[in-house]
Amino acid sequence: MSITLFNLQRDHIAHLQRAYETILANQGFDSLAIYSGHASVHFADDHTPTFQSYGHFMHWVGLADVQHSWLIIQPEKRPQLYLYAPADFWHLPTHLPEEPWVAEFDVHFCSDKITPSINGNAAIIGDTERLSASAIPTLKAACQPEQLVNALDELRLFKTPYEIACIREANRLALAGHEAAHAAFIGASGELDIQLAYLAASRQRESNVPYQNIIGLNEHAGVLHYQHYDLTAPKQRYSLLVDAGRRFRGYCADITRAYAGPDAPAAFGELVTAMHGLKDELVSSIAPGVSFIALHEQMHHHLAEILIAHDLFKGSAEQAVAEGVTRAFCPHGLGHSLGLQVHDVAGLRHPNGTPAPAPENHPALRLTRTLSTGMVVTIEPGLYFITMLLAPLRNSTLPLNWKLIDQLSPCGGIRIEDNVAVTESGFDNLTP
Amino acid sequence: MSITLFNLQRDHIAHLQRAYETILANQGFDSLAIYSGHASVHFADDHTPTFQSYGHFMHWVGLADVQHSWLIIQPEKRPQLYLYAPADFWHLPTHLPEEPWVAEFDVHFCSDKITPSINGNAAIIGDTERLSASAIPTLKAACQPEQLVNALDELRLFKTPYEIACIREANRLALAGHEAAHAAFIGASGELDIQLAYLAASRQRESNVPYQNIIGLNEHAGVLHYQHYDLTAPKQRYSLLVDAGRRFRGYCADITRAYAGPDAPAAFGELVTAMHGLKDELVSSIAPGVSFIALHEQMHHHLAEILIAHDLFKGSAEQAVAEGVTRAFCPHGLGHSLGLQVHDVAGLRHPNGTPAPAPENHPALRLTRTLSTGMVVTIEPGLYFITMLLAPLRNSTLPLNWKLIDQLSPCGGIRIEDNVAVTESGFDNLTP
Repeated sequence: MSITLFNLQRDHIAHLQRAYETILANQGFDSLAIYSGHASVHFADDHTPTFQSYGHFMHWVGLADVQHSWLIIQPEKRPQLYLYAPADFWHLPTHLPEEPWVAEFDVHFCSDKITPSINGNAAIIGDTERLSASAIPTLKAACQPEQLVNALDELRLFKTPYEIACIREANRLALAGHEAAHAAFIGASGELDIQLAYLAASRQRESNVPYQNIIGLNEHAGVLHYQHYDLTAPKQRYSLLVDAGRRFRGYCADITRAYAGPDAPAAFGELVTAMHGLKDELVSSIAPGVSFIALHEQMHHHLAEILIAHDLFKGSAEQAVAEGVTRAFCPHGLGHSLGLQVHDVAGLRHPNGTPAPAPENHPALRLTRTLSTGMVVTIEPGLYFITMLLAPLRNSTLPLNWKLIDQLSPCGGIRIEDNVAVTESGFDNLTP
Repeated sequence: MSITLFNLQRDHIAHLQRAYETILANQGFDSLAIYSGHASVHFADDHTPTFQSYGHFMHWVGLADVQHSWLIIQPEKRPQLYLYAPADFWHLPTHLPEEPWVAEFDVHFCSDKITPSINGNAAIIGDTERLSASAIPTLKAACQPEQLVNALDELRLFKTPYEIACIREANRLALAGHEAAHAAFIGASGELDIQLAYLAASRQRESNVPYQNIIGLNEHAGVLHYQHYDLTAPKQRYSLLVDAGRRFRGYCADITRAYAGPDAPAAFGELVTAMHGLKDELVSSIAPGVSFIALHEQMHHHLAEILIAHDLFKGSAEQAVAEGVTRAFCPHGLGHSLGLQVHDVAGLRHPNGTPAPAPENHPALRLTRTLSTGMVVTIEPGLYFITMLLAPLRNSTLPLNWKLIDQLSPCGGIRIEDNVAVTESGFDNLTP
């Protein structure tokens, strides 16, 4: 695999060279400086928060934690990397991985925080607002030109074979974590210990996860972005939801699994199985030309059928969708673009860069594009028992089975999420 | 203990009320707004980095992760807490701990991000630069007045019995982590797994540690702020250094231990023992009236004696200190103030707020005060084999035992660190 990745990465860099050349020419620029970004210290303190390099910087070098560094891209010239590497006995010196991109770049190790000079009709992108004014002194450059950033975002939407291989490897590593999390749940661990088991098996520290893992037991499984890890295990174990990822060379995995616990009603386990089926069905609908909004609506239609089949709703599927019942059970979108960022760029824009916002009745949808080859998306149908969203339905005459809903509410909810590449012939599920 | 903490916290709040009243009167203010701060998303992304509430906000409420919230302090009035608590099904709702301070405050749960209005001659402190201009619209208030912040910093330097009890409890929790880290080292774990064992036993996630734990095996023990965790265990196990803490109600523990591994030369284990002795000796020198700079110099003198006793230096102790030999072996300071921040405020200021910088020949010292009752400090003597710092000595004629130094270099270094309160009669070691 290592030899394959080697060649794929060389092709990826060559592809970026060509694509940037075209984009810069189209936009009338003859050089581009990309700033990695840097973390600022906590207010009135000397410690820094966690950090993530700028996506367009990562696109070239695959390093998610490089700070105070610059990349200069010019047509027909080798990329210039100005890597901040202080001569410092306080920290382990910065070093570069043994990957083929390094040979394609001119690498300048900088012991000071510098701003490289660029010539001609130049553009700068990245978080330059944090730089002191003196750091970009005489640069006559366009800062963050919108058209250019849109074009580079659009480029990121379509993954090279190298990028798809990286997301596949990130998935392989994350799945080892999911297995360990499930085992810890069977072993009656609480949320913190399930999280630590996940990290140990997926070989990463929390500072390096691409997004904060969601580890929700029982009703916490119904808190969509549940942000804590309880220290103690609950007495009753109804359910576990694990939404957790991994980076590989900058690229993210974003996988969710849900499990019924020993104290769950049998109906909950059956719903988990049904949601796995729904996920599989939606994945197999993926192909070039498919509208992601239509696929999202397909999810709602099948969700309605599941509600009916499992005796939660006693009306028709059309009624459940039309009256907002399925939206109350699943308020989030079907999925999103995935890449160097978990919610990757350009999901809510047309190919020409103009906004393509989420539909009014599905405001949380993060991807409104028509699928085409090279896109990588998450497919994550969900079904939750969220008091705040069910309350309005409870006051209606809609034929919901409140007795069963109340019985299932302590289980929180279910989400099953895979990462899928769109291929010429259909799809490639990267979450085996 | 819970009842004791209850009463101690009530006294702590009463103490803050009185002290703030005096400080505000002295500075000519009749109300103060303290902003908690908030995290901004990563550049061009929708995820946020880790966050730490502003120290002066934590001083009242002990919560290290509250965002978008305000505290209004006015003489002879109850503190007003405007707590941001969105009505939101995406996150678990904000809730307050069952602690006595809550009853002393008027708590306003705010579903929106608001700026409370304050009247009179008001001051605002906290990270208000991140607020949009519209968030502080009509406030006629002094922003971050230096004299006021200095006075509040000075107040923080002297801990109440409640604060000392919290640091003691943080130490107790952290020490359980240190025991587990040591056990993992004996079990031949690598750095990541030692870190995860530490987190599991000290019951915390990485996002909540007061500073990034340093877990250094072998030569990494000599990288003062070593910032990685290797995924694989090294074949040879010479040494482990663990510098790791814990928060309890906002208050930090900051403890370091070093261990000789099975592959270390016997001389390294003897040095570890000697450094424990040096730490104990320095701790027992703590008392009101002692100059921390003098104590730091005492560390260097005894370090010289250790170098001589262990055959690393063949000259006199005076020579070792005068010629910078001990500084090459220990480039950092003896310790720092400890509280709601790991490197707590006011360590480099005179009581009147004017700067009291580190001495020229000890630039890394973070505390230059004369000790007095109520201060809590770390005592952390170190001895390292750092190539960059030893290189100039190697080119000198100083009588160093390079053969032994080279033999010990793979062990990286040693640091032993306790947390100590200054008491009327001397000291109280909070790291039992």
